[in-house]
Amino acid sequence: MFVELDGDAPLVVQITRSLRAAIVSGTLRPGAALPATRTLAAELGVSRNTVVTAYEQLCAEQLAVAEVGRGTFVAAAVTPSSPQRTEGPAPAPAPLHEVSRYAARLRALPAPVLRGPQPQLRYDMRYGEPLVDPLLMSSWRRALGQAAMNCRENYPPCIGEAALRRAIAEYILRRRGVLCDADDVVIVSGTHQAICLLARILLDEGDRVAVENPGYEASVQALQAGGARLVDVPFDAHGLEVSALPRTGVRMILVTPSHQFPTGAVMSLERRRALLEHADATGSWVIEDDYDGEFRYDGTPLPALRALEAGERRVSYVGTFSKVLFPGLRLGYVVCPRALRDDLVAAKRLDDRGCSSVDQLALAQLMESGAFDRHLRRAAVELRRRRASLLDGLRRHAGGHVVVLDSCAGMHVVGWLPAWPADRVRSLVHLAAERGLGLHSIAPHYRRATPAQGLLFGYATLSVKQLGAATALLGACLRDASRSRAIAPPLAVIDDEDAMA
Amino acid sequence: MFVELDGDAPLVVQITRSLRAAIVSGTLRPGAALPATRTLAAELGVSRNTVVTAYEQLCAEQLAVAEVGRGTFVAAAVTPSSPQRTEGPAPAPAPLHEVSRYAARLRALPAPVLRGPQPQLRYDMRYGEPLVDPLLMSSWRRALGQAAMNCRENYPPCIGEAALRRAIAEYILRRRGVLCDADDVVIVSGTHQAICLLARILLDEGDRVAVENPGYEASVQALQAGGARLVDVPFDAHGLEVSALPRTGVRMILVTPSHQFPTGAVMSLERRRALLEHADATGSWVIEDDYDGEFRYDGTPLPALRALEAGERRVSYVGTFSKVLFPGLRLGYVVCPRALRDDLVAAKRLDDRGCSSVDQLALAQLMESGAFDRHLRRAAVELRRRRASLLDGLRRHAGGHVVVLDSCAGMHVVGWLPAWPADRVRSLVHLAAERGLGLHSIAPHYRRATPAQGLLFGYATLSVKQLGAATALLGACLRDASRSRAIAPPLAVIDDEDAMA
Repeated sequence: MFVELDGDAPLVVQITRSLRAAIVSGTLRPGAALPATRTLAAELGVSRNTVVTAYEQLCAEQLAVAEVGRGTFVAAAVTPSSPQRTEGPAPAPAPLHEVSRYAARLRALPAPVLRGPQPQLRYDMRYGEPLVDPLLMSSWRRALGQAAMNCRENYPPCIGEAALRRAIAEYILRRRGVLCDADDVVIVSGTHQAICLLARILLDEGDRVAVENPGYEASVQALQAGGARLVDVPFDAHGLEVSALPRTGVRMILVTPSHQFPTGAVMSLERRRALLEHADATGSWVIEDDYDGEFRYDGTPLPALRALEAGERRVSYVGTFSKVLFPGLRLGYVVCPRALRDDLVAAKRLDDRGCSSVDQLALAQLMESGAFDRHLRRAAVELRRRRASLLDGLRRHAGGHVVVLDSCAGMHVVGWLPAWPADRVRSLVHLAAERGLGLHSIAPHYRRATPAQGLLFGYATLSVKQLGAATALLGACLRDASRSRAIAPPLAVIDDEDAMA
Repeated sequence: MFVELDGDAPLVVQITRSLRAAIVSGTLRPGAALPATRTLAAELGVSRNTVVTAYEQLCAEQLAVAEVGRGTFVAAAVTPSSPQRTEGPAPAPAPLHEVSRYAARLRALPAPVLRGPQPQLRYDMRYGEPLVDPLLMSSWRRALGQAAMNCRENYPPCIGEAALRRAIAEYILRRRGVLCDADDVVIVSGTHQAICLLARILLDEGDRVAVENPGYEASVQALQAGGARLVDVPFDAHGLEVSALPRTGVRMILVTPSHQFPTGAVMSLERRRALLEHADATGSWVIEDDYDGEFRYDGTPLPALRALEAGERRVSYVGTFSKVLFPGLRLGYVVCPRALRDDLVAAKRLDDRGCSSVDQLALAQLMESGAFDRHLRRAAVELRRRRASLLDGLRRHAGGHVVVLDSCAGMHVVGWLPAWPADRVRSLVHLAAERGLGLHSIAPHYRRATPAQGLLFGYATLSVKQLGAATALLGACLRDASRSRAIAPPLAVIDDEDAMA
């Protein structure tokens, strides 16, 4: 039989490919009848519809002709405009053009550090996912239902739905001290898009951008892919060392002042002011990524950079709902200097014409109804409890090894391991994974050599009890890993995160 | 009183700005008490909360200090790290750096041709919005509700939700003859994003792209903003004239073979094959924008370019749900050659980490349940009726002036005006707008001189009856505009679309 199923691709693709080859090679000659669809389906053990679809495809390619009431036949002659069909298999395609420099840079980027859930782990202390709140989810479903009823059927405004921009302007004024008009708020699909769009309107290939090291990998990668040259700036417990910023040639400065990622440092007000003065004096643009500034555990938060006076001229404030709601909702926002607003909206328009209306309207509804604020309050209480449980567990079980410089904000803390060399930390991560505990080294967040070893402890997705158990297990792993003289596992699995795959 | 409301910005911004100026200038001296919030609120006629927020902002900026039970006071001393605060108004900011070349190109682009709805028009024959179908909307709301129940709380896969990719693979095989695996389908936020991402991974600044002229403005603008040099390729009733394509130096060819936008030409199978041969021989990439290929009114559609054998190597097939469902849903898809798939997904990951989960799952549900197919059948029947009414009306009322070369697909037809010079068409559009009829010249869709004058008639959003009345009104306008010796309106309002603002 000329139809052979090679198992590679859906059935209909296999059947079409096989018949096409038979026709082109002459095995099935012009005018020959193809088997009845029922017969072939029975022979191959597939549904008749599958065979019908394959035949239709061959007819569409003019390799076969369907005659009503008679069946399907191999076409009498193959059209002369396609000579390769009559001369056996198609010639090898011309060598592919290279992809763009952008794609080449994409290919050169390291694999993402923050991975998806790993179900084999009992306790995964990874960072990146927010608290799951069933009350929030049910409010969200209600809001979505209502939004679907009121949803416009035509294109959303590129800048974002007015109701959502109003709700966000009110929210960031209240929570982050950022004074702005709803017209200054541009809705985007999340932090990634905010940074990509800003980079696109502000940077040319080869331009220099000052970034924190260690820093948030995804933002940095977006800049690298765009062709920016990165300038690593040191920071200490008070945030970015502004005096270390180059005085010339830096067009953009990307910072996480509310809660430095990943170390947790909070930038002091003095440094914030110095940074804005630097930006004013050098004419550079500041991107303030406020990815989880909503959660603080020590009284008054510092005002956002954008909330300071010079911020209005220099700072693009980037907020996201991934961390306060859930990351499946692809919505974030940018409040940028007036001088950049129209460029940002134009870039958004060309990129995707605006975000999904229904998601935007549902979020606006959630914010207007107060359900969002209630969630933030509940989440803050619960995160505070979990954080206390984590810190207590670390003190009790890991005190001899782990030094926590607490940052009082966000959804993770860093536990430094001052006495541990890099290969020993890798062994620890490996050992913990074997015992069902997901540990995450800070090392991959550094772009160059890691000056200090440490672990990132995300605590948003584990309960108080789980955090107790997880830290106890951590204590045992620390003990065993520090005692054993075990050689680090072979190179292929050493690499921090890979060790847990 | 030192608080002056200048009316420029929200009340709280005005109050904060005014107080800040008074503190910085010394009008309010260190240690001075700010008025009680109630008093100031009453004086200004604003809510007390507004004043409280302004005071909080000043405290956050460390210009004021709140003392529990006593009130709010001007800070004793302004921090020395911010010298400009004590020395009167801030210095003028350094001259802003130029924006990127990308932003400069964005600014140079012409304003969008396709505008939003213009409520003052009784009949707007603009193109771009789909049929409104109440049955579809209610299925959509049900699907959304269900999706919200099942929605994942973590990040969606960058390539798109598996259920949606499966549903699309099945759909494009059945309707467009495109054979592919669900893993070849990449979910994007619509045609705009598809073209931007493909351009980013395939083109460097200055690379040449062959495009149709006239063509779909938004896609072309996305390419221009990215820095591509456009090569206009002529086409006739059989589609792109492949023989006119340059043999070297073109990396990408952007085409709308199913239904050329805006002329409606359908590319013949012979030309499709020739195009693929050309792409193979020259190593160029083809983007097939199948923006409304779903609706055809004359029997068998031709297979998509991607459905032809060489298509798998060379063609990125771009589909959208804006035209078959509604444009507020920002979802589309790309089926690209295997060689490009991972680059495309990586670019999507960096750009926005994937599309909204709930929208994707709701659409998958709509497709799986059969509601989507039922909508397509209903829409095809209704569009066929509307199209017939439009063509009939044009024959009866505009026969002497308008020549329709019908294309049997999509949601619009072009009526050519062979005897009308450009300025006369502008007067016609102007006159029609005054009488409540929205007409849309084809001229702005040409990038260079317009070889022939014509009007785009969108018929998806007008009922059979409305189309009858609209064409009758068109007939009257044609008569009057062709009779009158009216001078074209002044330049500021001549420009086709502006005439209707």
